[in-house]
Amino acid sequence: MSSPKDDIDRIFHALGDPTRRALVERLSAGPMSVSSLATPLDVTLTAVMQHLQVLEESGLVRTEKAGRVRTCRVEPAGFAVLQKWLAERRSMWERRLDFLGDLLAEEDEGG
Amino acid sequence: MSSPKDDIDRIFHALGDPTRRALVERLSAGPMSVSSLATPLDVTLTAVMQHLQVLEESGLVRTEKAGRVRTCRVEPAGFAVLQKWLAERRSMWERRLDFLGDLLAEEDEGG
Repeated sequence: MSSPKDDIDRIFHALGDPTRRALVERLSAGPMSVSSLATPLDVTLTAVMQHLQVLEESGLVRTEKAGRVRTCRVEPAGFAVLQKWLAERRSMWERRLDFLGDLLAEEDEGG
Repeated sequence: MSSPKDDIDRIFHALGDPTRRALVERLSAGPMSVSSLATPLDVTLTAVMQHLQVLEESGLVRTEKAGRVRTCRVEPAGFAVLQKWLAERRSMWERRLDFLGDLLAEEDEGG
């Protein structure tokens, strides 16, 4: 079992690489075979396969093999983990800003 | 001038490190001096300073020096860049899923 901390670690590591982000960007437009995915990028098919493996292990991409063709697609659940991490941080500082705003408003009323 | 691509590159690189994410998590609760920030973490003050520099360069954290104390706080604008990147990807695949849904609905009606 992987912890949420490990998940987010893998996700940031995976998306920290510009080639992997380019793969995710292309797959966001629709599922694609590994070879179509590799074509416009200036990297070898082997490198694309390795990047895809990192993306799969981080839960951001899913691949399926049918016959000789491996099709890749984005896995929204992986992105939801990143979204949740961001939302949690944001709710922390927004709560704090609300609290400061309330304090200032109370001071105004008191003065 | 940095491009949005460079910005997102720096942001993922910065957040790809668990210590830097721990710093961001602590700062989300409120601004803090560099030394308070370093205290509970198992890293040297020098390492914290270096991590903070990476976070500052990626626009995720801001630091201000008043007298001998340097105070750090999260910079919401930096997180907004990451949020925007995520939202853009998501809108791409959600549009596509809507489109596929419409196609299927039309087929149902046609049949």
